[in-house]
Amino acid sequence: MSIYANRWLLPEGIHELLPNRAQRLEELRRKLLELYQVWGYELVFPPFIEFLDSLLSGTGADLDLQTFKLTDQLTGRMMGVRADITPQVARIDAHQLQREEPTRLCYSGTVLHTKPDGFSRTRAQLQTGAELYGYAGISADMEIFSLMLETLRISNIANFSIDMGHVGIYRGLMEEAKLPKETEQKLFDALQIKSTSDISQVLNQTTLSNDLKEMLENLVHLQGDSFILDHAKKILKNANQTVQNALQDLEFMLENMPSFVTEKLHLDLAELSGYSYHTGLIFAGYVPQHGAALIRGGRYDHVGEAFGRARPATGFSTDLMALLDFQTQPIEFKRIFASEIKEGDPVQLAQQILTLRSQGETVICELPQQVGDAKALNCTHQLVWQNQAWAVVPL
Amino acid sequence: MSIYANRWLLPEGIHELLPNRAQRLEELRRKLLELYQVWGYELVFPPFIEFLDSLLSGTGADLDLQTFKLTDQLTGRMMGVRADITPQVARIDAHQLQREEPTRLCYSGTVLHTKPDGFSRTRAQLQTGAELYGYAGISADMEIFSLMLETLRISNIANFSIDMGHVGIYRGLMEEAKLPKETEQKLFDALQIKSTSDISQVLNQTTLSNDLKEMLENLVHLQGDSFILDHAKKILKNANQTVQNALQDLEFMLENMPSFVTEKLHLDLAELSGYSYHTGLIFAGYVPQHGAALIRGGRYDHVGEAFGRARPATGFSTDLMALLDFQTQPIEFKRIFASEIKEGDPVQLAQQILTLRSQGETVICELPQQVGDAKALNCTHQLVWQNQAWAVVPL
Repeated sequence: MSIYANRWLLPEGIHELLPNRAQRLEELRRKLLELYQVWGYELVFPPFIEFLDSLLSGTGADLDLQTFKLTDQLTGRMMGVRADITPQVARIDAHQLQREEPTRLCYSGTVLHTKPDGFSRTRAQLQTGAELYGYAGISADMEIFSLMLETLRISNIANFSIDMGHVGIYRGLMEEAKLPKETEQKLFDALQIKSTSDISQVLNQTTLSNDLKEMLENLVHLQGDSFILDHAKKILKNANQTVQNALQDLEFMLENMPSFVTEKLHLDLAELSGYSYHTGLIFAGYVPQHGAALIRGGRYDHVGEAFGRARPATGFSTDLMALLDFQTQPIEFKRIFASEIKEGDPVQLAQQILTLRSQGETVICELPQQVGDAKALNCTHQLVWQNQAWAVVPL
Repeated sequence: MSIYANRWLLPEGIHELLPNRAQRLEELRRKLLELYQVWGYELVFPPFIEFLDSLLSGTGADLDLQTFKLTDQLTGRMMGVRADITPQVARIDAHQLQREEPTRLCYSGTVLHTKPDGFSRTRAQLQTGAELYGYAGISADMEIFSLMLETLRISNIANFSIDMGHVGIYRGLMEEAKLPKETEQKLFDALQIKSTSDISQVLNQTTLSNDLKEMLENLVHLQGDSFILDHAKKILKNANQTVQNALQDLEFMLENMPSFVTEKLHLDLAELSGYSYHTGLIFAGYVPQHGAALIRGGRYDHVGEAFGRARPATGFSTDLMALLDFQTQPIEFKRIFASEIKEGDPVQLAQQILTLRSQGETVICELPQQVGDAKALNCTHQLVWQNQAWAVVPL
């Protein structure tokens, strides 16, 4: 009995959208895809399921655990439901399009996760994003960052802050340090939790130069507003070229972003989330009422490698379901009721309904002896026979 | 080695859409959802996965076999990937909205099937349709049928034919015949393959009146253009009220559909596809180059019953991926290239790009020293500094 009573309950983290929210989502989706189009990003629709070895090529173990597995009854091979669209788009760039030029692609589609995500507890995101392939310079990162800002603006999100980092800094220091793998992992873990005592402990067991030790110890303190960059340039002045390039990238970003964004910026040079995946500038957008990043992006240059073509790549993505909560502007709707005809010209009425609908007006036709009147059907107007013509009159 | 070489191959019946086709699909999707909106059909987004007992409630064994099964790691319960959106929308009407009034809903979303469908060999459809709940009269069927015709028109499909039937005719005859279940099944199977000899053989083993036998024997011949209805009314004149109501429904449809559709109509009163599911008028649209129905619909009054509320229901659905093949009109696109600035006012350029994009124009910015020029990026125009202003000039 209890199973039947609960039959309609949805699994945890799985949501459905009823009329008004569904329409809001659809409108947001259109506005964002139109934005990406006018910036020259071409739409692609990667498939919902793929063979598992294709879907997980070049991605990490996290994604494997998050991926629902299915058996292909035709071949017996394992398939997966996509848990992330980005690797699919990288595959399309590397294998299907095979262009030499910079390639701009965008997408919007459902991804499923086996377990709910930390903050939102969702297992089904409407992942939407834009990717720029084939250009290694910071100008591509700047374009993607600007498009992310436009995404926030169009999504009605003003009260945001931006976290920005660059994995090239830690990567450059590790190139110099040449630590044994195990020690590097310990240092990485200590940095991830930003524990200065753990960091010092790991470093004290190494034979690194004092210069390098000092830089690594200071890394966790290199976070704050945009002024921290000048401080970082001093602290890291003796680091190698990889580090210097990363600092130059950050400087370029600061010089070229709008000043209202600089005010919302939090730099964090020890930020290493997605370190196994990212290769350069990384950034994320937050709002106070949402604990996790609403939108995130960055450079990930090697992702096409698994498909035989390592192209430079930078992009961002967001979950439209999460952005939906910010679409709080009132919905203005006009619904015109066409009563069953009692007087007036029926041919003219049919013509008037056709005309109104072709102009984008919603017209609902009464069904004979139906339950509910125009108000019950949420109509705001009705068609009335006046002066030998059908007029739209408020209810 | 062979697995790696084939890594990018998609499973059979699974397709991805690259830039131009994806954009065509997106445009078709928008046009159809806008059509449904102006007819008063409210958009819903049912979830991609549900618990299996919810997803398959009140549906047949066919759908069960077509449904990919997943284990919910949170509860251990079985979930399914939807193979049909219609039962989900019926659940939303019955359980979530719970309105008394006629309720118009529409949707567009991916469904997956474990095995490829007969004709198209696809396993992933972009199922798109409209449903009208809460009204039992034929006027609702007429509205849904008209909206289906509009769907074909907007989808650029002119050369179609329509099959139409009514399961009330066979159902009414079976009410009268009161055959043992096994005999009825034999008769049903014989009718399905339209084998007159099998039908006669089954009927000869029964004690049915000659009148009823004659009607059942004649059923397979009651197919053809719209004139067959007059013939059917004579043949079935002594049948019960259920049959007479069905004939009246068909007559109403013929009287109210546009004459150009009547010419494309093929009536088939022995048509029983979806008999376990449908309860009234049924119809489907075909085109010569596509072996299976492109679009199909009809009445299915009891589908909400499993969710505690049996509402009258009629609707139709189609697969946008199948309609995509008919979007053959040339794509007109305009892409404007903004070169890296060598002369002219950079502030004015930025402003001009902003203005063009806000007007819906696509502007692609050159990246410093990038590979490929405007032509290589498929641009048709470029921004040129002329007379102290930035002008859009054809390439």
